Amino acid sequence: MIIVKIGGGKTINIKGIIADLSSLKETFLIVHGANALRDEIAERLNLPKKVITSVSGFSSVFSDESTLDIMMMTYAGLRNKRIVELCHQHGINAIGLSGLDGRLVQGKRNSGIRVKENGKLKIVHDFSGKPKSINKELLELLLQNKYIPVICVPIIDEYNYAINSENDDIVNVLQETISADKIIQLIEAPGLLIEKNNPESLINKLSQQELQHHVQQTEGRMKRKMLALQRLFDKGSPTVYISDGRSEHPVKDALSGKGTVIN
Amino acid sequence: MIIVKIGGGKTINIKGIIADLSSLKETFLIVHGANALRDEIAERLNLPKKVITSVSGFSSVFSDESTLDIMMMTYAGLRNKRIVELCHQHGINAIGLSGLDGRLVQGKRNSGIRVKENGKLKIVHDFSGKPKSINKELLELLLQNKYIPVICVPIIDEYNYAINSENDDIVNVLQETISADKIIQLIEAPGLLIEKNNPESLINKLSQQELQHHVQQTEGRMKRKMLALQRLFDKGSPTVYISDGRSEHPVKDALSGKGTVIN
Repeated sequence: MIIVKIGGGKTINIKGIIADLSSLKETFLIVHGANALRDEIAERLNLPKKVITSVSGFSSVFSDESTLDIMMMTYAGLRNKRIVELCHQHGINAIGLSGLDGRLVQGKRNSGIRVKENGKLKIVHDFSGKPKSINKELLELLLQNKYIPVICVPIIDEYNYAINSENDDIVNVLQETISADKIIQLIEAPGLLIEKNNPESLINKLSQQELQHHVQQTEGRMKRKMLALQRLFDKGSPTVYISDGRSEHPVKDALSGKGTVIN
Repeated sequence: MIIVKIGGGKTINIKGIIADLSSLKETFLIVHGANALRDEIAERLNLPKKVITSVSGFSSVFSDESTLDIMMMTYAGLRNKRIVELCHQHGINAIGLSGLDGRLVQGKRNSGIRVKENGKLKIVHDFSGKPKSINKELLELLLQNKYIPVICVPIIDEYNYAINSENDDIVNVLQETISADKIIQLIEAPGLLIEKNNPESLINKLSQQELQHHVQQTEGRMKRKMLALQRLFDKGSPTVYISDGRSEHPVKDALSGKGTVIN
Protein backbone atom coordinates (compact mmCIF):
# COMPACT_ATOMS: atom_id res chain seq x y z
CA MET A 1 0.00 0.00 0.00
CA ILE A 2 1.23 3.47 -0.96
CA ILE A 3 -0.04 6.81 0.30
CA VAL A 4 0.52 9.46 -2.37
CA LYS A 5 0.36 13.06 -1.21
CA ILE A 6 0.05 15.55 -4.06
CA GLY A 7 0.94 19.12 -3.17
CA GLY A 8 -1.41 21.96 -4.04
CA GLY A 9 1.17 24.18 -5.74
CA LYS A 10 0.58 25.81 -9.11
CA THR A 11 3.35 23.96 -10.95
CA ILE A 12 2.61 20.40 -9.79
CA ASN A 13 2.35 18.10 -12.83
CA ILE A 14 -0.89 16.34 -11.92
CA LYS A 15 -1.23 14.68 -15.33
CA GLY A 16 2.26 13.22 -15.06
CA ILE A 17 1.54 11.96 -11.55
CA ILE A 18 -1.69 10.20 -12.53
CA ALA A 19 -0.07 8.71 -15.64
CA ASP A 20 2.75 7.34 -13.47
CA LEU A 21 0.32 5.98 -10.88
CA SER A 22 -1.63 4.09 -13.54
CA SER A 23 1.35 1.81 -14.15
CA LEU A 24 1.93 0.99 -10.47
CA LYS A 25 1.26 -2.58 -9.39
CA GLU A 26 0.68 -1.75 -5.74
CA THR A 27 -2.56 -0.39 -4.32
CA PHE A 28 -2.49 3.27 -3.41
CA LEU A 29 -4.60 6.13 -2.19
CA ILE A 30 -4.24 9.82 -2.90
CA VAL A 31 -4.36 12.83 -0.59
CA HIS A 32 -4.23 16.10 -2.49
CA GLY A 33 -3.98 19.80 -1.85
CA ALA A 34 -5.21 22.79 -3.84
CA ASN A 35 -3.77 25.83 -2.09
CA ALA A 36 -2.74 27.74 -5.22
CA LEU A 37 -6.15 27.14 -6.77
CA ARG A 38 -7.88 28.17 -3.54
CA ASP A 39 -5.88 31.40 -3.36
CA GLU A 40 -6.66 32.19 -7.01
CA ILE A 41 -10.41 31.58 -6.66
CA ALA A 42 -10.55 33.44 -3.34
CA GLU A 43 -8.92 36.43 -4.99
CA ARG A 44 -11.25 36.30 -7.99
CA LEU A 45 -14.23 36.14 -5.60
CA ASN A 46 -12.70 39.02 -3.67
CA LEU A 47 -12.48 37.03 -0.45
CA PRO A 48 -8.96 37.56 0.85
CA LYS A 49 -7.47 35.48 3.66
CA LYS A 50 -8.39 36.70 7.12
CA VAL A 51 -5.52 36.91 9.55
CA ILE A 52 -6.10 37.23 13.28
CA THR A 53 -3.62 38.27 15.96
CA SER A 54 -3.86 36.76 19.41
CA VAL A 55 -3.21 38.68 22.64
CA SER A 56 0.14 36.91 22.86
CA GLY A 57 1.07 38.44 19.51
CA PHE A 58 0.81 35.41 17.23
CA SER A 59 -0.81 35.87 13.82
CA SER A 60 -2.70 33.03 12.17
CA VAL A 61 -5.14 32.48 9.31
CA PHE A 62 -8.73 32.63 10.51
CA SER A 63 -10.93 30.02 8.80
CA ASP A 64 -14.42 31.48 8.79
CA GLU A 65 -17.48 30.15 7.00
CA SER A 66 -16.51 31.63 3.64
CA THR A 67 -12.99 30.19 3.96
CA LEU A 68 -14.61 26.76 4.24
CA ASP A 69 -16.96 27.55 1.33
CA ILE A 70 -13.96 28.25 -0.89
CA MET A 71 -12.19 25.16 0.40
CA MET A 72 -15.21 23.04 -0.56
CA MET A 73 -15.29 24.65 -4.01
CA THR A 74 -11.61 24.28 -4.79
CA TYR A 75 -10.37 21.21 -2.90
CA ALA A 76 -13.47 18.96 -2.71
CA GLY A 77 -14.97 20.41 -5.88
CA LEU A 78 -12.77 21.46 -8.77
CA ARG A 79 -9.41 19.88 -7.90
CA ASN A 80 -10.79 16.63 -6.49
CA LYS A 81 -13.15 15.99 -9.40
CA ARG A 82 -10.59 16.86 -12.08
CA ILE A 83 -8.15 14.41 -10.45
CA VAL A 84 -10.87 11.74 -10.32
CA GLU A 85 -11.70 12.36 -14.00
CA LEU A 86 -8.03 12.11 -14.95
CA CYS A 87 -7.71 8.87 -12.96
CA HIS A 88 -10.56 7.25 -14.87
CA GLN A 89 -9.01 8.39 -18.14
CA HIS A 90 -5.91 6.43 -17.05
CA GLY A 91 -7.87 3.38 -15.93
CA ILE A 92 -7.65 4.14 -12.22
CA ASN A 93 -10.98 3.43 -10.52
CA ALA A 94 -10.97 6.58 -8.39
CA ILE A 95 -13.56 7.78 -5.92
CA GLY A 96 -13.18 11.31 -4.62
CA LEU A 97 -13.99 11.97 -0.98
CA SER A 98 -13.57 14.84 1.42
CA GLY A 99 -13.08 14.03 5.09
CA LEU A 100 -16.78 14.84 5.58
CA ASP A 101 -17.99 12.04 3.33
CA GLY A 102 -18.95 9.06 5.42
CA ARG A 103 -17.03 10.87 8.20
CA LEU A 104 -13.87 9.56 6.53
CA VAL A 105 -11.47 11.89 8.38
CA GLN A 106 -12.59 12.83 11.86
CA GLY A 107 -10.95 15.65 13.73
CA LYS A 108 -11.07 17.85 16.77
CA ARG A 109 -11.76 21.57 16.52
CA ASN A 110 -8.93 23.84 17.65
CA SER A 111 -9.51 25.56 20.95
CA GLY A 112 -10.18 29.22 20.36
CA ILE A 113 -7.77 32.11 19.92
CA ARG A 114 -7.62 34.76 22.66
CA VAL A 115 -8.01 38.20 21.14
CA LYS A 116 -8.66 41.71 22.41
CA GLU A 117 -11.66 43.46 20.88
CA ASN A 118 -12.49 47.03 21.92
CA GLY A 119 -10.33 46.52 24.97
CA LYS A 120 -12.19 43.37 26.02
CA LEU A 121 -10.61 39.92 26.15
CA LYS A 122 -12.51 37.38 24.08
CA ILE A 123 -12.04 33.90 22.68
CA VAL A 124 -12.85 33.42 18.99
CA HIS A 125 -13.32 30.06 17.30
CA ASP A 126 -12.69 29.29 13.67
CA PHE A 127 -13.33 26.22 11.55
CA SER A 128 -9.95 24.57 11.86
CA GLY A 129 -8.58 21.64 13.76
CA LYS A 130 -6.56 18.45 13.75
CA PRO A 131 -7.47 15.05 12.32
CA LYS A 132 -7.69 12.37 15.03
CA SER A 133 -9.06 9.26 13.37
CA ILE A 134 -10.09 7.65 10.11
CA ASN A 135 -13.31 5.78 9.31
CA LYS A 136 -11.30 2.62 8.74
CA GLU A 137 -14.36 0.52 7.83
CA LEU A 138 -15.21 2.87 4.95
CA LEU A 139 -11.61 3.07 3.75
CA GLU A 140 -11.25 -0.72 3.77
CA LEU A 141 -14.66 -1.20 2.16
CA LEU A 142 -13.55 0.93 -0.77
CA LEU A 143 -10.06 -0.54 -1.07
CA GLN A 144 -11.34 -4.12 -0.86
CA ASN A 145 -13.75 -3.34 -3.66
CA LYS A 146 -10.94 -1.90 -5.82
CA TYR A 147 -11.80 1.75 -5.48
CA ILE A 148 -8.89 4.18 -5.17
CA PRO A 149 -9.78 6.90 -2.63
CA VAL A 150 -8.83 10.45 -3.64
CA ILE A 151 -9.00 12.35 -0.37
CA CYS A 152 -8.99 16.05 0.51
CA VAL A 153 -10.09 18.59 3.10
CA PRO A 154 -12.33 19.64 4.71
CA ILE A 155 -12.53 17.06 7.46
CA ILE A 156 -15.33 16.69 10.02
CA ASP A 157 -15.03 17.77 13.67
CA GLU A 158 -16.52 16.30 16.85
CA TYR A 159 -19.65 18.44 16.41
CA ASN A 160 -20.06 17.37 12.76
CA TYR A 161 -18.87 20.68 11.36
CA ALA A 162 -16.54 20.97 8.38
CA ILE A 163 -13.10 22.13 9.42
CA ASN A 164 -9.84 22.98 7.72
CA SER A 165 -6.79 20.87 8.51
CA GLU A 166 -3.19 20.25 7.42
CA ASN A 167 -2.64 17.52 4.83
CA ASP A 168 0.54 16.45 6.61
CA ASP A 169 -1.58 15.63 9.66
CA ILE A 170 -4.16 13.78 7.56
CA VAL A 171 -1.40 11.66 6.00
CA ASN A 172 -0.14 10.89 9.49
CA VAL A 173 -3.52 9.69 10.74
CA LEU A 174 -3.97 7.66 7.55
CA GLN A 175 -0.58 6.06 8.10
CA GLU A 176 -1.45 5.21 11.72
CA THR A 177 -4.58 3.51 10.34
CA ILE A 178 -3.33 1.58 7.34
CA SER A 179 0.47 1.26 7.84
CA ALA A 180 1.46 1.84 4.23
CA ASP A 181 4.83 0.51 2.99
CA LYS A 182 5.55 3.65 1.05
CA ILE A 183 4.57 7.26 1.39
CA ILE A 184 5.24 9.52 -1.58
CA GLN A 185 5.05 13.28 -1.13
CA LEU A 186 5.15 15.32 -4.32
CA ILE A 187 6.09 18.93 -3.80
CA GLU A 188 7.34 22.02 -5.65
CA ALA A 189 11.00 21.32 -4.85
CA PRO A 190 13.47 18.54 -5.69
CA GLY A 191 13.01 17.09 -2.20
CA LEU A 192 14.10 18.14 1.28
CA LEU A 193 16.60 20.95 1.00
CA ILE A 194 19.10 21.99 3.67
CA GLU A 195 18.95 25.55 2.35
CA LYS A 196 15.52 26.66 1.19
CA ASN A 197 15.59 27.66 -2.52
CA ASN A 198 18.92 25.92 -3.12
CA PRO A 199 18.26 22.73 -5.12
CA GLU A 200 21.93 21.84 -4.77
CA SER A 201 21.38 21.32 -1.05
CA LEU A 202 19.06 18.33 -1.62
CA ILE A 203 19.19 15.66 1.07
CA ASN A 204 19.13 12.49 -0.97
CA LYS A 205 19.04 9.89 1.76
CA LEU A 206 18.04 10.23 5.33
CA SER A 207 17.76 7.69 8.12
CA GLN A 208 15.18 8.00 10.89
CA GLN A 209 18.02 8.92 13.24
CA GLU A 210 19.23 11.68 10.93
CA LEU A 211 15.66 12.93 10.61
CA GLN A 212 15.50 13.27 14.40
CA HIS A 213 18.72 15.26 14.29
CA HIS A 214 17.22 17.62 11.68
CA VAL A 215 14.09 18.13 13.80
CA GLN A 216 16.26 19.53 16.58
CA GLN A 217 18.14 21.82 14.20
CA THR A 218 15.26 23.40 12.27
CA GLU A 219 12.67 26.01 13.18
CA GLY A 220 9.25 27.29 12.19
CA ARG A 221 7.42 25.75 9.26
CA MET A 222 10.34 23.46 8.40
CA LYS A 223 10.39 22.09 11.97
CA ARG A 224 6.65 21.37 11.72
CA LYS A 225 7.24 19.53 8.45
CA MET A 226 10.10 17.52 10.02
CA LEU A 227 7.98 16.64 13.05
CA ALA A 228 5.18 15.47 10.75
CA LEU A 229 7.69 13.33 8.85
CA GLN A 230 8.95 11.84 12.09
CA ARG A 231 5.42 10.82 13.09
CA LEU A 232 5.12 8.73 9.90
CA PHE A 233 7.48 6.20 11.49
CA ASP A 234 5.44 5.83 14.67
CA LYS A 235 3.63 2.88 13.17
CA GLY A 236 5.14 0.45 10.65
CA SER A 237 8.45 1.02 8.87
CA PRO A 238 7.52 2.86 5.70
CA THR A 239 9.89 4.29 3.17
CA VAL A 240 9.09 7.96 2.69
CA TYR A 241 9.83 9.62 -0.65
CA ILE A 242 9.77 13.40 -0.88
CA SER A 243 10.21 14.32 -4.49
CA ASP A 244 9.64 16.84 -7.27
CA GLY A 245 6.00 17.01 -8.32
CA ARG A 246 6.92 19.23 -11.25
CA SER A 247 8.98 16.74 -13.27
CA GLU A 248 7.75 14.76 -16.25
CA HIS A 249 7.49 11.55 -14.23
CA PRO A 250 7.07 12.61 -10.60
CA VAL A 251 6.13 9.20 -9.16
CA LYS A 252 8.71 7.22 -11.15
CA ASP A 253 11.39 9.74 -10.19
CA ALA A 254 10.38 9.56 -6.54
CA LEU A 255 10.48 5.76 -6.43
CA SER A 256 13.83 5.66 -8.25
CA GLY A 257 15.30 7.82 -5.52
CA LYS A 258 15.73 11.12 -7.33
CA GLY A 259 14.37 13.14 -4.41
CA THR A 260 14.75 12.52 -0.69
CA VAL A 261 14.34 8.97 0.56
CA ILE A 262 13.82 8.39 4.27
CA ASN A 263 13.80 4.98 5.89
CA MET B 1 -36.37 3.09 -0.76
CA ILE B 2 -36.98 6.75 -1.52
CA ILE B 3 -35.21 8.91 -4.08
CA VAL B 4 -35.20 12.53 -2.92
CA LYS B 5 -34.48 15.14 -5.58
CA ILE B 6 -33.64 18.55 -4.15
CA GLY B 7 -33.97 21.45 -6.58
CA GLY B 8 -31.14 23.92 -7.00
CA GLY B 9 -33.24 27.07 -6.57
CA LYS B 10 -32.25 29.90 -4.28
CA THR B 11 -35.22 29.57 -1.91
CA ILE B 12 -35.12 25.80 -1.32
CA ASN B 13 -35.13 25.10 2.44
CA ILE B 14 -32.28 22.60 2.56
CA LYS B 15 -32.07 22.63 6.37
CA GLY B 16 -35.77 21.81 6.63
CA ILE B 17 -35.41 19.01 4.09
CA ILE B 18 -32.48 17.37 5.88
CA ALA B 19 -34.20 17.72 9.28
CA ASP B 20 -37.31 16.03 7.84
CA LEU B 21 -35.24 13.25 6.24
CA SER B 22 -33.52 12.49 9.55
CA SER B 23 -36.83 11.25 11.00
CA LEU B 24 -37.69 8.97 8.06
CA LYS B 25 -37.67 5.24 8.72
CA GLU B 26 -37.10 4.23 5.11
CA THR B 27 -33.73 4.25 3.37
CA PHE B 28 -33.21 7.06 0.91
CA LEU B 29 -30.72 8.68 -1.38
CA ILE B 30 -30.43 12.28 -2.42
CA VAL B 31 -29.90 13.86 -5.84
CA HIS B 32 -29.41 17.60 -5.62
CA GLY B 33 -29.05 20.61 -7.87
CA ALA B 34 -27.26 23.92 -7.38
CA ASN B 35 -28.23 26.04 -10.38
CA ALA B 36 -28.81 29.29 -8.48
CA LEU B 37 -25.48 28.87 -6.69
CA ARG B 38 -23.75 28.05 -9.97
CA ASP B 39 -25.16 31.15 -11.66
CA GLU B 40 -24.12 33.33 -8.72
CA ILE B 41 -20.54 32.02 -8.61
CA ALA B 42 -20.23 32.14 -12.42
CA GLU B 43 -21.27 35.78 -12.34
CA ARG B 44 -18.86 36.62 -9.53
CA LEU B 45 -16.06 34.90 -11.46
CA ASN B 46 -17.15 36.82 -14.56
CA LEU B 47 -17.83 33.66 -16.52
CA PRO B 48 -21.29 34.12 -18.06
CA LYS B 49 -23.21 31.28 -19.69
CA LYS B 50 -22.26 30.64 -23.27
CA VAL B 51 -25.15 30.22 -25.67
CA ILE B 52 -24.68 28.72 -29.10
CA THR B 53 -27.07 28.84 -32.06
CA SER B 54 -27.21 25.90 -34.45
CA VAL B 55 -27.67 26.24 -38.21
CA SER B 56 -31.27 25.15 -37.74
CA GLY B 57 -31.81 28.14 -35.46
CA PHE B 58 -31.95 26.46 -32.07
CA SER B 59 -30.13 28.13 -29.18
CA SER B 60 -28.66 26.09 -26.35
CA VAL B 61 -26.23 26.48 -23.47
CA PHE B 62 -22.72 25.48 -24.47
CA SER B 63 -20.92 23.61 -21.69
CA ASP B 64 -17.23 24.30 -22.20
CA GLU B 65 -14.36 23.44 -19.88
CA SER B 66 -14.93 26.41 -17.59
CA THR B 67 -18.66 25.58 -17.37
CA LEU B 68 -17.64 22.19 -16.01
CA ASP B 69 -15.09 23.78 -13.68
CA ILE B 70 -17.84 25.91 -12.12
CA MET B 71 -20.14 22.91 -11.95
CA MET B 72 -17.49 20.98 -10.03
CA MET B 73 -16.99 23.92 -7.68
CA THR B 74 -20.66 24.56 -6.95
CA TYR B 75 -22.47 21.23 -7.31
CA ALA B 76 -19.81 18.66 -6.35
CA GLY B 77 -17.95 21.11 -4.10
CA LEU B 78 -19.83 23.69 -2.09
CA ARG B 79 -23.44 22.48 -2.28
CA ASN B 80 -22.68 18.76 -2.02
CA LYS B 81 -20.34 19.11 0.95
CA ARG B 82 -22.62 21.51 2.84
CA ILE B 83 -25.50 19.04 2.41
CA VAL B 84 -23.27 16.18 3.59
CA GLU B 85 -22.19 18.24 6.62
CA LEU B 86 -25.82 19.07 7.44
CA CYS B 87 -26.74 15.38 7.10
CA HIS B 88 -24.14 14.34 9.66
CA GLN B 89 -25.35 17.07 12.00
CA HIS B 90 -28.77 15.38 11.78
CA GLY B 91 -27.41 11.86 12.26
CA ILE B 92 -27.64 10.92 8.58
CA ASN B 93 -24.54 8.95 7.51
CA ALA B 94 -24.12 10.76 4.21
CA ILE B 95 -21.45 10.27 1.56
CA GLY B 96 -21.30 12.85 -1.22
CA LEU B 97 -20.53 11.66 -4.72
CA SER B 98 -20.55 13.17 -8.18
CA GLY B 99 -21.32 10.90 -11.10
CA LEU B 100 -17.56 10.76 -11.75
CA ASP B 101 -16.75 9.11 -8.44
CA GLY B 102 -16.39 5.38 -8.93
CA ARG B 103 -18.11 6.05 -12.28
CA LEU B 104 -21.37 6.19 -10.34
CA VAL B 105 -23.42 7.81 -13.13
CA GLN B 106 -22.28 6.86 -16.61
CA GLY B 107 -23.51 8.78 -19.63
CA LYS B 108 -23.13 9.34 -23.32
CA ARG B 109 -21.81 12.58 -24.74
CA ASN B 110 -24.27 14.54 -26.88
CA SER B 111 -23.55 14.46 -30.59
CA GLY B 112 -22.27 17.85 -31.67
CA ILE B 113 -24.15 20.97 -32.66
CA ARG B 114 -23.96 22.09 -36.31
CA VAL B 115 -22.95 25.72 -36.48
CA LYS B 116 -21.76 28.12 -39.17
CA GLU B 117 -18.47 29.85 -38.46
CA ASN B 118 -17.06 32.35 -40.97
CA GLY B 119 -19.41 30.92 -43.55
CA LYS B 120 -18.17 27.37 -42.96
CA LEU B 121 -20.30 24.55 -41.60
CA LYS B 122 -18.76 22.92 -38.57
CA ILE B 123 -19.76 20.59 -35.76
CA VAL B 124 -18.89 21.70 -32.23
CA HIS B 125 -18.91 19.43 -29.21
CA ASP B 126 -19.50 20.49 -25.64
CA PHE B 127 -19.27 18.63 -22.34
CA SER B 128 -22.91 17.61 -22.01
CA GLY B 129 -24.83 14.42 -22.44
CA LYS B 130 -27.34 11.98 -21.08
CA PRO B 131 -26.96 9.48 -18.23
CA LYS B 132 -27.33 5.88 -19.42
CA SER B 133 -26.42 3.66 -16.50
CA ILE B 134 -25.55 3.54 -12.81
CA ASN B 135 -22.65 1.72 -11.14
CA LYS B 136 -25.15 -0.45 -9.28
CA GLU B 137 -22.45 -2.40 -7.40
CA LEU B 138 -21.10 0.80 -5.86
CA LEU B 139 -24.56 2.14 -5.03
CA GLU B 140 -25.54 -1.13 -3.35
CA LEU B 141 -22.22 -1.42 -1.56
CA LEU B 142 -22.83 1.96 0.05
CA LEU B 143 -26.51 1.40 0.84
CA GLN B 144 -25.85 -2.06 2.32
CA ASN B 145 -23.24 -0.51 4.57
CA LYS B 146 -25.66 2.17 5.74
CA TYR B 147 -24.23 5.09 3.81
CA ILE B 148 -26.70 7.56 2.32
CA PRO B 149 -25.48 8.66 -1.13
CA VAL B 150 -25.77 12.39 -1.87
CA ILE B 151 -25.41 12.56 -5.64
CA CYS B 152 -24.83 15.41 -8.08
CA VAL B 153 -23.42 16.29 -11.50
CA PRO B 154 -21.09 16.10 -13.32
CA ILE B 155 -21.45 12.57 -14.59
CA ILE B 156 -18.85 10.62 -16.60
CA ASP B 157 -19.12 9.98 -20.35
CA GLU B 158 -18.03 7.01 -22.46
CA TYR B 159 -14.56 8.58 -22.91
CA ASN B 160 -14.18 9.20 -19.16
CA TYR B 161 -14.75 12.93 -19.45
CA ALA B 162 -16.87 14.92 -17.02
CA ILE B 163 -20.12 16.06 -18.61
CA ASN B 164 -23.12 18.10 -17.60
CA SER B 165 -26.50 16.40 -17.48
CA GLU B 166 -30.11 16.97 -16.38
CA ASN B 167 -31.01 15.84 -12.85
CA ASP B 168 -34.41 14.62 -14.10
CA ASP B 169 -32.58 12.18 -16.36
CA ILE B 170 -30.26 11.06 -13.55
CA VAL B 171 -33.26 10.37 -11.32
CA ASN B 172 -34.79 8.34 -14.14
CA VAL B 173 -31.71 6.16 -14.58
CA LEU B 174 -31.47 5.73 -10.79
CA GLN B 175 -35.11 4.65 -10.70
CA GLU B 176 -34.52 2.14 -13.50
CA THR B 177 -31.67 0.74 -11.39
CA ILE B 178 -33.10 0.61 -7.88
CA SER B 179 -36.92 0.73 -8.33
CA ALA B 180 -37.67 3.04 -5.42
CA ASP B 181 -41.15 3.00 -3.85
CA LYS B 182 -41.27 6.74 -3.57
CA ILE B 183 -39.71 9.59 -5.46
CA ILE B 184 -39.88 13.02 -3.85
CA GLN B 185 -39.06 16.09 -5.94
CA LEU B 186 -38.71 19.31 -4.01
CA ILE B 187 -39.04 22.43 -6.14
CA GLU B 188 -39.68 26.16 -5.93
CA ALA B 189 -43.45 25.81 -6.47
CA PRO B 190 -46.31 24.17 -4.55
CA GLY B 191 -46.26 21.22 -7.01
CA LEU B 192 -47.29 20.77 -10.62
CA LEU B 193 -49.27 23.80 -11.73
CA ILE B 194 -51.67 23.94 -14.69
CA GLU B 195 -50.87 27.63 -15.11
CA LYS B 196 -47.26 28.56 -14.45
CA ASN B 197 -46.99 31.10 -11.58
CA ASN B 198 -50.56 30.41 -10.38
CA PRO B 199 -50.36 28.40 -7.15
CA GLU B 200 -54.15 28.08 -7.19
CA SER B 201 -53.82 25.86 -10.25
CA LEU B 202 -52.01 23.09 -8.30
CA ILE B 203 -52.71 19.59 -9.52
CA ASN B 204 -53.11 17.70 -6.25
CA LYS B 205 -53.56 14.18 -7.52
CA LEU B 206 -52.66 12.69 -10.85
CA SER B 207 -52.93 9.16 -12.17
CA GLN B 208 -50.44 7.77 -14.67
CA GLN B 209 -53.18 8.00 -17.32
CA GLU B 210 -53.82 11.65 -16.53
CA LEU B 211 -50.08 12.28 -16.67
CA GLN B 212 -50.03 10.88 -20.20
CA HIS B 213 -52.87 13.23 -21.12
CA HIS B 214 -50.87 16.20 -19.78
CA VAL B 215 -47.80 15.16 -21.78
CA GLN B 216 -49.82 15.53 -24.97
CA GLN B 217 -51.17 18.92 -23.95
CA THR B 218 -47.98 20.66 -22.81
CA GLU B 219 -45.03 22.12 -24.69
CA GLY B 220 -41.41 23.12 -24.24
CA ARG B 221 -39.74 22.75 -20.88
CA MET B 222 -42.97 21.61 -19.21
CA LYS B 223 -43.39 18.83 -21.77
CA ARG B 224 -39.81 17.69 -21.07
CA LYS B 225 -40.58 17.64 -17.35
CA MET B 226 -43.78 15.65 -17.97
CA LEU B 227 -41.98 13.16 -20.20
CA ALA B 228 -39.33 12.70 -17.52
CA LEU B 229 -42.08 12.08 -14.96
CA GLN B 230 -43.70 9.52 -17.23
CA ARG B 231 -40.43 7.60 -17.54
CA LEU B 232 -40.35 7.15 -13.73
CA PHE B 233 -43.16 4.61 -14.10
CA ASP B 234 -41.34 2.51 -16.70
CA LYS B 235 -39.98 0.28 -13.95
CA GLY B 236 -41.77 -0.45 -10.69
CA SER B 237 -44.86 1.40 -9.46
CA PRO B 238 -43.52 4.28 -7.44
CA THR B 239 -45.52 7.07 -5.92
CA VAL B 240 -44.11 10.38 -7.10
CA TYR B 241 -44.41 13.47 -4.90
CA ILE B 242 -43.71 16.87 -6.38
CA SER B 243 -43.86 19.38 -3.61
CA ASP B 244 -42.76 22.73 -2.24
CA GLY B 245 -39.09 22.74 -1.23
CA ARG B 246 -39.51 26.18 0.35
CA SER B 247 -41.88 25.23 3.20
CA GLU B 248 -40.88 24.64 6.81
CA HIS B 249 -41.24 20.86 6.45
CA PRO B 250 -40.79 20.09 2.74
CA VAL B 251 -40.51 16.30 3.03
CA LYS B 252 -43.30 15.88 5.60
CA ASP B 253 -45.55 18.11 3.50
CA ALA B 254 -44.74 16.15 0.36
CA LEU B 255 -45.48 12.78 1.97
CA SER B 256 -48.71 14.07 3.51
CA GLY B 257 -49.91 14.99 0.02
CA LYS B 258 -49.73 18.77 0.16
CA GLY B 259 -48.16 19.01 -3.32
CA THR B 260 -48.78 16.86 -6.37
CA VAL B 261 -49.03 13.11 -5.87
CA ILE B 262 -48.75 10.84 -8.91
CA ASN B 263 -49.36 7.11 -8.80
